[in-house]
Amino acid sequence: MTRAAVLGAGSWGTAFAKVLADAGTEVTIWARRAEVAEALATEHRNPFYLPDVQLPAVAATNDPERALEGAELVVLAVPSQSLRANLESWKPALHTAITEHDATLLSLAKGIETGTLLRMSQVIAEVTGTESSRIAVLSGPNLAKEIAAGQPAATVIACSDAARAEAVQQASYTGYFRPYTNTDVVGCEIGGACKNVIALACGIASGMGLGDNSIASLITRGLAEIIRLGVALGAEPVTLAGLAGVGDLVATCTSPLSRNRSFGHVLGAGGSMEAAQEATHGQVAEGVKSCTSIRALAAAHDVEMPLTNAVHQVCHEGLSVREAVGNLLGRRVKPE
Amino acid sequence: MTRAAVLGAGSWGTAFAKVLADAGTEVTIWARRAEVAEALATEHRNPFYLPDVQLPAVAATNDPERALEGAELVVLAVPSQSLRANLESWKPALHTAITEHDATLLSLAKGIETGTLLRMSQVIAEVTGTESSRIAVLSGPNLAKEIAAGQPAATVIACSDAARAEAVQQASYTGYFRPYTNTDVVGCEIGGACKNVIALACGIASGMGLGDNSIASLITRGLAEIIRLGVALGAEPVTLAGLAGVGDLVATCTSPLSRNRSFGHVLGAGGSMEAAQEATHGQVAEGVKSCTSIRALAAAHDVEMPLTNAVHQVCHEGLSVREAVGNLLGRRVKPE
Repeated sequence: MTRAAVLGAGSWGTAFAKVLADAGTEVTIWARRAEVAEALATEHRNPFYLPDVQLPAVAATNDPERALEGAELVVLAVPSQSLRANLESWKPALHTAITEHDATLLSLAKGIETGTLLRMSQVIAEVTGTESSRIAVLSGPNLAKEIAAGQPAATVIACSDAARAEAVQQASYTGYFRPYTNTDVVGCEIGGACKNVIALACGIASGMGLGDNSIASLITRGLAEIIRLGVALGAEPVTLAGLAGVGDLVATCTSPLSRNRSFGHVLGAGGSMEAAQEATHGQVAEGVKSCTSIRALAAAHDVEMPLTNAVHQVCHEGLSVREAVGNLLGRRVKPE
Repeated sequence: MTRAAVLGAGSWGTAFAKVLADAGTEVTIWARRAEVAEALATEHRNPFYLPDVQLPAVAATNDPERALEGAELVVLAVPSQSLRANLESWKPALHTAITEHDATLLSLAKGIETGTLLRMSQVIAEVTGTESSRIAVLSGPNLAKEIAAGQPAATVIACSDAARAEAVQQASYTGYFRPYTNTDVVGCEIGGACKNVIALACGIASGMGLGDNSIASLITRGLAEIIRLGVALGAEPVTLAGLAGVGDLVATCTSPLSRNRSFGHVLGAGGSMEAAQEATHGQVAEGVKSCTSIRALAAAHDVEMPLTNAVHQVCHEGLSVREAVGNLLGRRVKPE
């Protein structure tokens, strides 16, 4: 029986802890806040995220060292921009898990670090000093609420060491959750990071009253620019045509459960950034931050990303949504 | 000014006639029924399809020879399984358009001919005896109602002769309709034909109460099998990652306007084939017919298409939707 520590008790961390437990893995969740850890440990419920979901028996604590005790699988489920600071504070306990239990580090975080422009697996390697073959990432069409409800879903677990990817697959395979393995870590991470920005663009379009043709076109042109960036960074195009690319992109861009899509919808309907933030329960959508770092990463590799650029201009440079759409449609006709 | 004949006055033929007219092309529509031709000619309205859409000035007739008089662009907008019989009856007038006006033949029909397993451009070449460089196809995320409403959409016009593709592009480029050219006719046709079957599968899943993760996974796995078939037939994978592949697939699989998705939804909710047909205004969804010919085409090229096969079994072999989903989810875990 694998012993796993899930570090982070947001909606995805919580839902994935349920997947692991349902797959027969022994799980301890770490929650930053004591009251969340308490509710998870005693009621097997997360009152702040997924309040309606009854979890199977999982242990929970707000002490990261306790969560990491004996962990062979360390699931990193904190927001991308706070991953580095968290890893720094967990360093000694992570070191023990790695040296004494040969632990695999699995990233659920999706994003590009602001400033450094590093992918999450690179941040993990840099802070922990561990070899990249120990670091896996998980990405796919995985809306947390649906997975917590036991609806069938597929995902990709990528690691340069195929045996580690398979071990994570075995630890998380259930009747409703179907993980495929892959060795293309870069492709999975780029797909996961970029889709939030395209979902913002789709939300803007739907808020402006545009229909399914427009959304499908934005998804397709978004996929094209994601593939261009991925290939420039060494990803395989086929990964981005798969669950961690197309799959995650389609789920995030079309689902009303997607925070990025909802945030964009308010902007498209003429609302301000503040109004969009209010409508998404006070949280700024991930794509608002990542559009800027992805745009910088693309510029550093000479990759054109017109949609990501337009989202950046709308969110951070005061471009109106009508001007943004005009700019995108105004590009001259040409071969596909 | 290009002169175009649009042969077929269903919803897509009618909407595309509007696009051509809006682009400054001179259009004559042929409708099989005299009353449709009459309404189009006098009221510039199609009372059976798109009754709420006011068309610009287009000519209309139920006489194919009159429609084809002087046509430099012949748009074939009849259902795929009746294309051959229609072409046979139009042969002399088509011959005149080809020999006297160097006409381009543009197919809007999406499907694989039952029995022969030919793509629509192959049927056109076979019946008319014309060279394939004269035959173009149009495919993309193009829900007719949205295009008729002037909502922005993109599409692909494919022809082995790039100059002909560009001429069609110029004849159909408007402020809201943005055609890209491509030379990969096979890729465009395979994307267009196969997406209806996957949309049926998505409808079945949504009718069973499955959510956005499941739909996104079906779209992704569906894309994978479409790419496998396309590549076996000589298509470029990049075409299928574009508007005529992913774009059309996403629009058809996620839109409530899609007849195939609606038909599948009734089956997924436990309804019979007859009930599904009633719910879609007495019409059998295209995917119900094409799943069988696509499955046969795949078998002839040794290509695995598990989703298409499952749809065929549900529609034609009495497999229950629950068994079909069980079979799909039951495939063993493996690399992506």
